[in-house]
This record gives sequence, structure tokens and C-alpha cells, in this order.
Amino acid sequence: MKTITKLGLAAALMALPSLGLAQEAAEVVEAAPAAAVPTDTVFILNTLLFLIGGFLVFFMACGFAMLEAGLVRSKNVAMQCTKNVALFGLASIFYYLIGYNLMYPLGTWAIDGWLSGVWGPGVLEAVGVTADAADDYGYASTGSDFFFQLMFCAATASIVSGTLAERIKLWPFLIFTIILTSIIYPVSASWKWGGGFLDAAGFLDFAGSTVVHSVGGWAALAGALILGPRLGRYDGGRVNAFPGSNLTLATLGTFILWLGWFGFNGGSQLAMGSVGDVADVSRIFSNTNTSAAGGAVAALILTQIMYGKADLTMVLNGALAGLVSITAEPLTPSLGAATIIGAIGGIIVVLVVPVLDKLKIDDVVGAIPVHLVCGIWGTIAVVFTNPDASFGAQIYGIVVVGVFTFVVSGLVWLILKAIMGIRVSEEDEIAGLDMAELGMEAYPEFSKG
Amino acid sequence: MKTITKLGLAAALMALPSLGLAQEAAEVVEAAPAAAVPTDTVFILNTLLFLIGGFLVFFMACGFAMLEAGLVRSKNVAMQCTKNVALFGLASIFYYLIGYNLMYPLGTWAIDGWLSGVWGPGVLEAVGVTADAADDYGYASTGSDFFFQLMFCAATASIVSGTLAERIKLWPFLIFTIILTSIIYPVSASWKWGGGFLDAAGFLDFAGSTVVHSVGGWAALAGALILGPRLGRYDGGRVNAFPGSNLTLATLGTFILWLGWFGFNGGSQLAMGSVGDVADVSRIFSNTNTSAAGGAVAALILTQIMYGKADLTMVLNGALAGLVSITAEPLTPSLGAATIIGAIGGIIVVLVVPVLDKLKIDDVVGAIPVHLVCGIWGTIAVVFTNPDASFGAQIYGIVVVGVFTFVVSGLVWLILKAIMGIRVSEEDEIAGLDMAELGMEAYPEFSKG
Amino acid sequence: MKTITKLGLAAALMALPSLGLAQEAAEVVEAAPAAAVPTDTVFILNTLLFLIGGFLVFFMACGFAMLEAGLVRSKNVAMQCTKNVALFGLASIFYYLIGYNLMYPLGTWAIDGWLSGVWGPGVLEAVGVTADAADDYGYASTGSDFFFQLMFCAATASIVSGTLAERIKLWPFLIFTIILTSIIYPVSASWKWGGGFLDAAGFLDFAGSTVVHSVGGWAALAGALILGPRLGRYDGGRVNAFPGSNLTLATLGTFILWLGWFGFNGGSQLAMGSVGDVADVSRIFSNTNTSAAGGAVAALILTQIMYGKADLTMVLNGALAGLVSITAEPLTPSLGAATIIGAIGGIIVVLVVPVLDKLKIDDVVGAIPVHLVCGIWGTIAVVFTNPDASFGAQIYGIVVVGVFTFVVSGLVWLILKAIMGIRVSEEDEIAGLDMAELGMEAYPEFSKG
Repeated sequence: MKTITKLGLAAALMALPSLGLAQEAAEVVEAAPAAAVPTDTVFILNTLLFLIGGFLVFFMACGFAMLEAGLVRSKNVAMQCTKNVALFGLASIFYYLIGYNLMYPLGTWAIDGWLSGVWGPGVLEAVGVTADAADDYGYASTGSDFFFQLMFCAATASIVSGTLAERIKLWPFLIFTIILTSIIYPVSASWKWGGGFLDAAGFLDFAGSTVVHSVGGWAALAGALILGPRLGRYDGGRVNAFPGSNLTLATLGTFILWLGWFGFNGGSQLAMGSVGDVADVSRIFSNTNTSAAGGAVAALILTQIMYGKADLTMVLNGALAGLVSITAEPLTPSLGAATIIGAIGGIIVVLVVPVLDKLKIDDVVGAIPVHLVCGIWGTIAVVFTNPDASFGAQIYGIVVVGVFTFVVSGLVWLILKAIMGIRVSEEDEIAGLDMAELGMEAYPEFSKG
Repeated sequence: MKTITKLGLAAALMALPSLGLAQEAAEVVEAAPAAAVPTDTVFILNTLLFLIGGFLVFFMACGFAMLEAGLVRSKNVAMQCTKNVALFGLASIFYYLIGYNLMYPLGTWAIDGWLSGVWGPGVLEAVGVTADAADDYGYASTGSDFFFQLMFCAATASIVSGTLAERIKLWPFLIFTIILTSIIYPVSASWKWGGGFLDAAGFLDFAGSTVVHSVGGWAALAGALILGPRLGRYDGGRVNAFPGSNLTLATLGTFILWLGWFGFNGGSQLAMGSVGDVADVSRIFSNTNTSAAGGAVAALILTQIMYGKADLTMVLNGALAGLVSITAEPLTPSLGAATIIGAIGGIIVVLVVPVLDKLKIDDVVGAIPVHLVCGIWGTIAVVFTNPDASFGAQIYGIVVVGVFTFVVSGLVWLILKAIMGIRVSEEDEIAGLDMAELGMEAYPEFSKG
Repeated sequence: MKTITKLGLAAALMALPSLGLAQEAAEVVEAAPAAAVPTDTVFILNTLLFLIGGFLVFFMACGFAMLEAGLVRSKNVAMQCTKNVALFGLASIFYYLIGYNLMYPLGTWAIDGWLSGVWGPGVLEAVGVTADAADDYGYASTGSDFFFQLMFCAATASIVSGTLAERIKLWPFLIFTIILTSIIYPVSASWKWGGGFLDAAGFLDFAGSTVVHSVGGWAALAGALILGPRLGRYDGGRVNAFPGSNLTLATLGTFILWLGWFGFNGGSQLAMGSVGDVADVSRIFSNTNTSAAGGAVAALILTQIMYGKADLTMVLNGALAGLVSITAEPLTPSLGAATIIGAIGGIIVVLVVPVLDKLKIDDVVGAIPVHLVCGIWGTIAVVFTNPDASFGAQIYGIVVVGVFTFVVSGLVWLILKAIMGIRVSEEDEIAGLDMAELGMEAYPEFSKG
């Protein structure tokens, strides 16, 4: 058992530090015994970063749920909540059943056999490991790494649910979620964070503008194209706005996502056990916040200029755009550069939303501009502040992950469509998914205007 | 003063490590000087765990408030918010006035006299203690322990408020809260966590499936029986559903509770100053999350099968059921076992809710199935994964705590009923507690459907 | 560059520890090498406190947004959300552009020139600093300090937005926000926390009852006087209540603020790298919570006595009043004293709200009683528990900060009024700011009662 675990974790060790700061993380592990922070303390602090980062990113599931529940019409709100809770539940289960092993693939499978993590200690270390045994576990607890990585995987699915809201059937959506979180995301993420060929090619994506956000965005785009727009959304050349039913919820969701992003980006430093690492985490927190601010303010000003009125939903999506844009490289920019990277993200969102409408791609919450387009922008923007980045490698990573995710997602959506249908009936869509598929309303006492 | 404080804290020290991991926690304290993590660092890290765990569990008070406000009808929403804020305020005050000393009883009372914690340093250590003086405080700051323990006490009262919503008078409810948080919970909790006879009997309850959740559930059940169901809820053999007025709030509350539970269970490790402890906290985070996922998914599938439609409120209560179920032992299960323990919790909720209705026990938010029944299930489930657990000891603890809480709570409710009445008038109940008892509405501008 | 940074940070170092516990924080730095916690670990733990405190205080921006969105009428809700997101975004940008350097003024400006922090490393340390280089950065990462301090600055602006809701134009409000967060707050805060003359005079304000909350309150009061009350609020001698549209949101906002306050006060200890510091943080958490509880319970009881009915909005504001009241000194009080300090805050709010109405000062959310009046009360209350405080110095600080903020804010409001007007037209106010300035509604589907 010990040997097996060790192998599994050796693989994890190999894989983990490659997220952004491979060299430094490795240095920490080696240098620690001689440095002023004792090795065990380093282990504890690194683990603590994963735990804090993990619960912050967990809370993003709530943020997505609130954002999406606020931006759909009230007849689909309960369904949107159901999907968000259910997708997180399924991601939590299928990521340990399949995804985590697939993402860090060298270890447990070959030796333990399929699904070893379920019953054996494949994923989590044994109860009460001693400091000696911890040498097997490298520089942080595997359990904390699993917890942290899971939350990234679940975020991918949360992105999809927003775009496809108000017309997709519950169960096909959940089956897609299972495939996304157990296979599509882990496979493509392993190419970068599992020590795969994109990592070897010099592709840089610190916390996942491409690996997480664009993957969610591509999967959502494939779904939106196959699913088609909501009834009445595009009448000939006219675009009918379907205003969100509850903008306070959308605001709440945005603030929660903003909060969670400190864990998303800060935790991706993967180490907090040295002065250099904790100072870097501090830079990341500051830059992440500043980029969100840049995105929100840019969207505010641009909508005022373009439309003569500020637009709250654009400001919210602008903040999220800033967050996605800085995610590929939250460490190296100065505060000024981070503001500009985020501001460009905010501008992208304001400009891309009408383009999608022109193309009759119906994205209920704006997840494609925010997560896909700004994910691409953020990945490219790495080259402006990180001297280790090459434009070619960034484009290579964007294209490879994009093609893979879009094609495989599209195939899965097409198969689901053929087998069971993915869209509710016209009557159900008009009545709302809440009454049709759940038999309940989110706000049963409030009459509709 | 110093001596007194020392005695009080010696008692606390004796009592604290007995929560679940007595042996290990004790080892940490002794082994630390020789280990690689310096003693002072251990003290800081343990204290930090209490503080982080504490603020996460604090946030559960918000989660309960949102869950309950979402599941009552709109005419009672402002009152439900009022009760939740007020109960937390009263718990915060009465737990330090009486409860905390009662729960860890060896020290301060006898020497300082009654209510010594109020003005003296009985509860909190002096400002700016030195590292030397910290030896008196054992392995973590008493102030942080008090903060953490208080949040558990308050959670008990939050559970009660949900069951009795929409018909109980404000002030009798608050008086009950005072008695629950200053006496009932601390006394029964002391039997396990204060180093009492249940602890000596080998009863295991890591973070409180029985000690916290069932206690809340028993108190709620006693109240529900004495208070009776809401008007019109049970017409002869028919059960009339009173749908919750705001399911996004209920979803928000569930996510917040889920978040807070990482602190609830993870903080109950009571130590983070060694590799073994922090790895265990990581296991606990992962298992807690997985169990909630299991509960949510099981409830989703079961309602789809039983009723032909998924049910959002059941999915939410399923997640909470998973959380309660894993609380008695979040450390020893594998991820697969945690999923199953949570899934059984989710199934229990779906099955028990209609049983309560058949018995005409009106539990507005489903707190009895979630906290009481799953609290019992979780306490029994310890025997499946923890070799130190005995079925007999678990049943013994469940019965002792249950009989005590149910009987004493029932007596308090009966006395309150006799003295001041606990139920609002029929007119007030029909009009809603908001207008009747507060003279305000939660949503004054939204007309009722 | 190194030298410059060092100077900048030396200034920060000089300035920082003066917040409340100058002596102790300084001791930590000096004593650390010899003590049991290694210097690097101290640096990491101090930084971690800023990061955790910072994200908690960040979340207060969400709390303010929810509180205010819940307390305005539904026709102004989307605007209130817009203002809260936008003000936070602007504060984030302008605090690093101007404010932070102005607040800790000795360093970067003189040498780097204006706006040096934008592109250079003036604010954040370089990527991957080594432990040796960290000596330049003193006892914690500057990036984490910036992140933490920014959140305090932003809170000041959040306070203003509540008072002036439902009638102020978006852009003049945002311009005021820029001036407040880049100049007014940083200048007055530097007098205390930047090592200025108020600090030298012995003025004590641990986490900012005066420096943050009263500053926000004074700026709001100046604005309210110049802006005038909402249409129809005061008809002759009659006060017309305009009930908040969504009290669950207000409750949510209060709980979030309460949560964030643990970071606000606890983080203001500024150090967690010693047994004494972490024990003090624990005291602060406990006292902060207890004071909020005291405020909520006092407001509950007082409204029941005065009006015969409990009042939810008063209970919420009572909790916030307790939090503001304890902010000037959350460390030295016992739990009993903290309860009383908070309770007096809660009583103040209940009594001051009608006084403001009598004066026809229209404060939509009660921010003036909560943040200004209780900020003053809390600053005075320091003398009751902290032997180092002098009544004269406290009054001196209150008056100096008050006069400066009120006069400068008033001038800015008057200039804005003269240049561009600060109030929407009568028609727009009646129609609601959401349709008038944003062209959207927060709850478009819910008909108004």
C-alpha cells in the first residue's frame, strides 16, 4: 500500500509544481530543510493555502448559481438552482472516481487498478500520517490538493450551465457535466497541469484562463450552437432582450465569484511556505482584484459612452471578464498592467455580446464572452508581462485546447441530442422549466408583471 | 488571577482534546518541542485553525437564515430573519455568560465565582500574553477556542428556528434559545466534549452529528409537537404543501451552510500544527464535500424516480443531509464511503419528510429529517469506518443525548406555553407574523400571486 | 530600485505598527530571530493574516451592496448595485494610483516620482523575492498590506453610497468616490495610521471607528445636507417611511458585514507571528462578535419597548452599530465590556434615527447613526478599557478628522453640484433611478404592490 501510494503521489508531485511556478515550487521543497522555515511548517503552510484556496473556489459554485439564477427569467430560476447544485455534486463525485486520476495519470491506476481512489487511499493520505511518512506526500497534503483541484473542475461545468439556461433539459445537461468533469476537463488539463505536452511546449497558464475558463466556454459554445437560441430571442433580424429576473442576485453572484477568485488565482501559486511564495500570493491577490476593477470600470464607461446609459449587467460581466483575463498570469503584471489587462477584458465583453447576438448564438448569461473570449485574451496577455512566455506557445495551447474541447463537446452534445434529445418542448420552454421539469416555482407568491 | 486562569484553562485543556482525536491532539502537545515545527508555531497554527473554522461556522448562521427565509411564505420572512439574527446574538451572549463555563466545567466557576468570564479574563487570555505565559494556555489560544465553540452552540438554536417557523411567537422562542444555548446544549455537549461520561463510555462524535445536530433536532421536535402544525397544513388526511417563497435564497443558504461546514468539520480536528493534523484536516474537507455531493445527488435521483420530477428543495436538503451524516466521522471514511454515507442521508430525507407529514408533525424547513434523523444515522455510521467505534456506545450516546434534550426541551416548551403562550393567534398566523409581530413586510412592493 | 523600494517600505514599516499595537508589533520584529518562531515563518504568518483579513474585508463590499439594495425601494435597486460595484472598482484603482502613497508618504513619491506604483514595484514587491530580500520588506509582504489597506479605503466609500441612495446621480457620486478614496481618506488616515500627528498625540483607533467609519459618515452627512431629502420623505412635520424593498437582502448584507468584520478588526492586529499576537487576534474575534451581539439584542429589546414591536431593520443596524462601536478598541475589553459597548451602540442607533428625521436629514440606510455616531461613541469608549487612552486625545482625533472630512467633503459636494449637478430630476426620482439612469429594472417581472 505504501509503495503504491508513494508512486501515485510521486506522480502528483511531478505534475503539480508544473502549474506556473514549477521551478520555484520545486526549490521550496529542496531548499526548505536548510531554510529558516522548517520543512514540516512548509508542508503545513502549503496545505493550508490549498484548503483556504479550495473553500474560496468552492464558494464560486454559489457565485455561479446566484449569477445565473439572477440572469434567467423567473420561470426558470428554480431549475437553474437545481442544475448548479446538481452539477457541483456530480463533479465532486466523478472527479475523484475518474477525473483526478486521469489528470495526474502516472500513478494509481496502473497499480491499484480502476477506481482505486474510491475505496483505497489512492487520493487521500492515510489518517494521521506522521511527519516521516509525509516525505511520501511531497510538499503538501494530497487531500488538500485534491480538494483544491476539484473546485477548478467543477467551475468548468458551472460555466456551461449559464450559457445553456432556459431551454436545455435537466438530465442531458447533467450527463454532459459528468463527461466534462470526468474526462474532457481532466484530459485537457493534464496536458498543461498534469505535466503533459502543452506544458513541455512552454505554454503558460497560471491559474487557467484557457485550461479552466476557455474549456468551459468552448463546451458552452458547442452546446449553444447545437441547442439553438431560446424561442423568440431572435425574430428575423431583431434581437429581443430577455432581462434577468433578479439583478441583486446577479450582483451577489459576481461579488462571490470575485471573492472566490482570490483562492482561484492565489491558491494556484501552490505554495506558501517561503517568503517568496507568500509575497507572490500577495501580488496575485492584489493583481486579481485590480484586474476585476479594471474590467468593471471599463465596462461602465464604455456602456455609458456607447449607449448613453450605464449597464449593470455589463459592469458585472466586466468585473468577471477582468478576473478571467488576469487568470493566465496574475503574478508578473504590475498593478497598472493588471488594470489594463482587466479593462481590455471588460471592453471585450461589451463588444462581443452584440456580436454573438448578430450570429444568433444565444448565451443567456454572457459566459462565452466572459470565459471563452476573455480566457483567450488573458492567455495571450501573458506575453506582455512574463518574459518566459512565447506568443507561439500561447497560441498553440489556445488552439489545441480549443479544438479538442469544442470537437469532443460537440460530439457529446450531438450524441445526447440523438439519443435522448437535449431541448425541452416548445410548450415547456414557454411555460418555464420550473413548472415543466420540477413542478415548482422559485418565487411562487410574486405575480409576474 | 494567573493561577485562576491557569486552572480554568487547565480544565479547558483537559476537555478539549477529547473531541474525537484525544490521543493525537495530546501527542501534538507533547511531541511538538522535539518535532520540526517549533512549539510556538504549533500554538499559532492551532489557533489559526480555530479562527478560520470559527468564521466559517459563523457564516452558517447566515446560511440558516437564508435557507429558512427562503422556505417560509413571504408573510413570515422578516420574522424569520429577525429570529435568526436575534438567536445568534443571544447565543453569543449567553454562551459566554453561562454555557462555555458549564461545558468545560472544572475551572473558573469554583474559584472565580459565577459569571467570572464576564469581567475577568476567565474566558479570554490577557492581552499580549508572552510565549512563556502561553504554556498556561496549552496548545491554542482559549479565545480562539471560545470563538469556535460558540458557533457550534449557536448552530443548535438555528436548527430549531426553522422547524417552528410561521407560528411561534418571537419572545418565547428567544427565551427558549437562551435556555438551549446557556444550559441544554452546554450540559449535553459537556458529556462528550467536556470530558464527561459519554466520552468515557467510548461514544464517538467527531464534530457533532449527535452533540450539535441531533440536539437541535430533538429540541425542534419537542417544540413542533407542543406547538402543533400550521393552520391548514393538515386538513383531515390531506397534506397541503406551503411552498417556500424564495428558492434562490434557500439555494444560497444551502451553499453557505456547505461552505461553513468545512470549518465545522475541519476545525473539529482541533489542531493543525503537525503534518498529520493538517493532512487530516484535508481529508476532512474532502470527505465533507463528497458526502454533501452524495446527499444532493441521491435526493435528486430519488425524487426523479419517486415523483417523476426532480425536486430542488429535496436536493438542497439532501446536500445538508449529507453534511450532517458525515459530521460524526468525517476523517476515517474513504471518499467512496463518504459518498455513500451522504447518499444514505439524502435518501433518508426524501423518505422521512412524508412520514413526518403522515404523523402531522409540521417541520417547515425539514430540519428534523436533516438534523435529527441524519444526525442519528451519521452517529451510527461511525462504526463502519472507525475501528475504535462500538455500536453499543454510539447507541448509548444517541439515546442519552436524545432523551435528555427531548425531555428537558419539552418541559421548557410546556412551561413557556403555560406562562406566556408560545403560539400566535389564528388571526396573526393568517395575516403573517411580519405584519402581526413586526409591523413590516420583507417584500413590501411585490404583490402576492 | 532596491533602495527606493526599501525606503518606501521602511516608511510603511514605520507607519504600520502604529496601528494600535505599535510596541508589540515592533517587538515581534526584533525578538523574532531569537524566539521560537523562525523569522521567515513570522513573515509568512503576518502576511497570511493580511490576506485572510483582506478577503474578509473585501466581502464587506458585497455586504454593503446587499444591505443597501435591500433597504432602497425596488425602483432604485439596480442603481444601488451599480454604484456599489463601481465604487469598489474605482477605489481599487485610485487607491494604488494615489491613495496608498499618500497614506504612507515617506517613500516612493520623492524618489520614483508621481504614480511610481503603477508601473514600477513601488507598491508590490518583486516576483519571487528571496528571504534575504524580504528584510527590505520588514515584517510582512507589502503586497498583502496594500491589499488589506485598500479594503478599508473602499469601505469608506460604501458607507457614503447608502446614505445618498435613491436621489444622487451616478457620475457625480463616482467622482466623489474617486476624491474620497484617493485623497480624503488617505490624508486623514495618514494622520493616524501613516504615523502622523494624531498618532503622535496619543489618539487611539485600533481598526478605524473614526479613521474609517466616521470618515465615511461625515462624508455622507455632508452629502445628505447638500443633496436634501428624497421627494415626499418629509411632508411638513410628517415623516413618511419608505420601507426597504427586500429585507432578506438587508439581512444577508448584515451577516456578510459581520463576517467581514472579523477580518477588519482581527487583521488590524497587523501581526500573527507570535503567541501573543495570535492570542490577541482571538480576543479581537471574540469581542467583535460579542459587541455585534450586544448591539443587535439591545436594538431588539429597545424597539420592542419603545414601539411595542420588534423592528428587523433596527436589529440589523443594531448589530452593525455594535460592530462599529468596538472597532476603535476590540482588544482590551472583556467580553462583558464588549457586550455593553456594542449594546450602547445599538441603543444609539434606535435613538438617533428619529432625531435625524426630525432634522430632515434623509439617510436611506441609517449609515449616519451607525457609522458616524457609533464611530464617535466607539472612539470615546476606548478610554474605558484601554489604560493608554486619554479622553482628550480621543476627542482631539474625533474633532480633527471630523472637521477635515466634513469640510472637504462638503466643498467637493458643492463644487460637483455647481459644475454638473448632483441630484437627478424630479421625474427621474419619481420614476426611479433604475429606469432613468440605467434603463433597466432589478426585478422586471415582479409587479409593484
